[in-house]
Amino acid sequence: MKTPARNLTLMTDLYQLTMIDAYIKSGKENQLAVFDFFFRNKEEFNYALFAGLEQAVTYIKNLKFFDDDIGYLKSLNLFSEKTLDYLKNFCFDGDIYSVPEGTVVFPGEPILVVKAKIAQAQLVETALLNILNHQTLIATKASRIVGAARGKAMEFGLRRAQGPDAGIYGARAAYIGGCFSTSNVLAGKLFGIPVSGTHAHSYIMSFPDELTAFRAYAKANPNSCLLLVDTYDTLRSGVKNAITVFKELKEQGYKPVGIRLDSGDLAYLSKVARKMLDEAGFPDAIICASGDLDEYSIQSLMSQGARIDLWGVGTRLITSEKTPSLGGIYKLVAVEEDGRLAPKIKISDNMVKITNPGFKTIYRLYDKGDMAIADLICLHDEEIDTTKPLTIFHPIETWKKMTLTDFKAKKLHLKIFDKGNLVYTSPAIQQIAEYAKEDLATFWSEYKRIDNPHIYKVDLSDKLYNLKQKLLKANGG
Amino acid sequence: MKTPARNLTLMTDLYQLTMIDAYIKSGKENQLAVFDFFFRNKEEFNYALFAGLEQAVTYIKNLKFFDDDIGYLKSLNLFSEKTLDYLKNFCFDGDIYSVPEGTVVFPGEPILVVKAKIAQAQLVETALLNILNHQTLIATKASRIVGAARGKAMEFGLRRAQGPDAGIYGARAAYIGGCFSTSNVLAGKLFGIPVSGTHAHSYIMSFPDELTAFRAYAKANPNSCLLLVDTYDTLRSGVKNAITVFKELKEQGYKPVGIRLDSGDLAYLSKVARKMLDEAGFPDAIICASGDLDEYSIQSLMSQGARIDLWGVGTRLITSEKTPSLGGIYKLVAVEEDGRLAPKIKISDNMVKITNPGFKTIYRLYDKGDMAIADLICLHDEEIDTTKPLTIFHPIETWKKMTLTDFKAKKLHLKIFDKGNLVYTSPAIQQIAEYAKEDLATFWSEYKRIDNPHIYKVDLSDKLYNLKQKLLKANGG
Repeated sequence: MKTPARNLTLMTDLYQLTMIDAYIKSGKENQLAVFDFFFRNKEEFNYALFAGLEQAVTYIKNLKFFDDDIGYLKSLNLFSEKTLDYLKNFCFDGDIYSVPEGTVVFPGEPILVVKAKIAQAQLVETALLNILNHQTLIATKASRIVGAARGKAMEFGLRRAQGPDAGIYGARAAYIGGCFSTSNVLAGKLFGIPVSGTHAHSYIMSFPDELTAFRAYAKANPNSCLLLVDTYDTLRSGVKNAITVFKELKEQGYKPVGIRLDSGDLAYLSKVARKMLDEAGFPDAIICASGDLDEYSIQSLMSQGARIDLWGVGTRLITSEKTPSLGGIYKLVAVEEDGRLAPKIKISDNMVKITNPGFKTIYRLYDKGDMAIADLICLHDEEIDTTKPLTIFHPIETWKKMTLTDFKAKKLHLKIFDKGNLVYTSPAIQQIAEYAKEDLATFWSEYKRIDNPHIYKVDLSDKLYNLKQKLLKANGG
Repeated sequence: MKTPARNLTLMTDLYQLTMIDAYIKSGKENQLAVFDFFFRNKEEFNYALFAGLEQAVTYIKNLKFFDDDIGYLKSLNLFSEKTLDYLKNFCFDGDIYSVPEGTVVFPGEPILVVKAKIAQAQLVETALLNILNHQTLIATKASRIVGAARGKAMEFGLRRAQGPDAGIYGARAAYIGGCFSTSNVLAGKLFGIPVSGTHAHSYIMSFPDELTAFRAYAKANPNSCLLLVDTYDTLRSGVKNAITVFKELKEQGYKPVGIRLDSGDLAYLSKVARKMLDEAGFPDAIICASGDLDEYSIQSLMSQGARIDLWGVGTRLITSEKTPSLGGIYKLVAVEEDGRLAPKIKISDNMVKITNPGFKTIYRLYDKGDMAIADLICLHDEEIDTTKPLTIFHPIETWKKMTLTDFKAKKLHLKIFDKGNLVYTSPAIQQIAEYAKEDLATFWSEYKRIDNPHIYKVDLSDKLYNLKQKLLKANGG
């Protein structure tokens, strides 16, 4: 049987397969292992909004090497017959835990945990990283932009996205991050995201003059007339002609929607355009802006008093321009030795690059007003007793302590796969976006602001901290 | 009939469809139009390596709105029945001209030209931009990295790519840009690109100690043993253990391949590791490096005398980290008026943002040593007479002139689609990569260097210059 077009089983780094071959040759392909997916601190981002789980689940569900895949692998002359047989019969039968999509997460947290036979856990590394890194990156960037735009941002980036999937799944992630629509019609169809769009400069230029073009567009869309006004001269021609057409629409009983500014000094142009529209009797006509926008330029325009009602955000959102990769990693944290899971640690000269060992989970601690106080990374089976005071401390600067009383604790992980069986139903995307909005609201704005944000506490439980110290000493650290 | 998984017809901005609806309502959907695909100057890049044409061709060939697409569009309540009928019967019957993949191109050049009925030319804008922007970006970045690495670079970026396609087509583009292999097995299968990879830290950590892990890997891969040496301590543990295993392999009659450094000070570590390997009798064992590399860090390591033979390049290549979008655009340059093509110009306060009007082509001029001197953008039907001296001039600073004698001229455009029929066969990817290498070699290194490169001349023919001036004056410019 031939591989279906969107089966991503072979979308892995070659070294996953050469390692599987080597594991098989050492007879240890079925050794149980635990891997954490997490990201390290990125200068631009102090939090991330987790996204992509639904596609990761689909990927895992569809894992299968088809005949042509095996044929291709065989042609590489790198793998033993035993390995090719193993792959032919490959079936994921491990456990996966994850926080749900739309959850606010922080550097170092085990966002998704794979507990599976080592060859299986190894195979899925690359695609999981690819899918989760990308969507989490774009959802995070979107949440920052939407924050600056006070909820009024549309995603317009498809033409500048890094390939079709970056546009399609980027639109999905941007919606989870709070954009209320996308320009991408395919994403609209696939995910049920609202779509928006009107016309381009080429439309205007295809007519003998701007006024004729505006009139034609208004005639075609009398109930949804939003006009792009910067093709020739924004104020002297564009806004003036738009007002002429808006008056004609009004006489015919229609209500014009507004104008779009796509270039020039958006602060100045929006203020003058607002005045012109108001004076012409169109105080309800909106001003939409686009053109190389991101959270920084939106924040700056807002602070200058720009009169912009709606923000169309493209390139800098869909590529996360300043930080185009989340840098999420997938690290071995435990492996079966003598029938039990032995925690593993990756040493580094750089303290923040040392991994947290063992099979773990995350608790989020809230105050009685339901605002998040801190996250606590714990060993998988730890429970938190909220009836007793809890002292938490900084995982490196351990003298920084805090004792909580009257707090709530929520376990962030859900079980997604149980022995290879999918035990989780992904919510509708509207629910995911709603959950993200609610989750973001449990964090004080000081944690989310763009400039110099307050650092949220992510601490280790006593048990995990002690385990880490023990392993560091054993490794001569 | 339901849409096949990878049909991208609906992958367009909604405004293309609302414009089509408006064109139909004005009865001008069949008006002939010409659009140019080009990019503007990007601070980091002074040239680009064109890639993605094969996928753009596939997209155009497969253009078709399936029943479920029409059903979705109808559900939006935005389009007239006439528009839905038009889309149901949509068939691209226009002409497309393009430079071949692997061609070096410059800002402002009409790299790909679509001459088609305006509704058709409009529909394909977004997907063409998406595909060509992405692959051209990554091919360009790769060519810079490969230049710094003197041809010895492998692409390892899949896990950090912006979604599956960014990894898959990014690997294709990186190969066109000169990377000799990819880690991406699916890209290897789909495009016939060589794949490479060995093992990760997790492999080492899954064994009780590093030496045991190395021995197991060597046993599994005695003929292709390349060991990752930075899991615990690169020099004191990793290289030392690798040498132990290499000696054991040698005794068994095998030749070890080498080591990989993935962290730390690569200049220092590679020099010491080289010395250790040489002294142990392995002067042929190679040193491969990876970890946040790009053309800047490779150039710096080279200038420090790092002893690195092979470069594995990931995140910063696959996302083109410093410049994650090419910013390519698609502009209307001519439209049918009274039965003939009327050139169109987009005005801007910024001289370099004013478009070049009309249906055009590009000539590349070479000296008698076959080195490129300048490109000349001409009207489509212009021919260059190389038997006569040719005076070219800067398109803005027109006093900068140069007269060529004894030169050659090559037309860069090929016809790809003729009245909707594909008249072009895409070469094999190896041929494209070879062509790119040859094309890059026709440019003096001064144009390609990373720091402060010389600016290549892209001038306008007399006819095109005069047309542009005439339109500027007519538009009050």
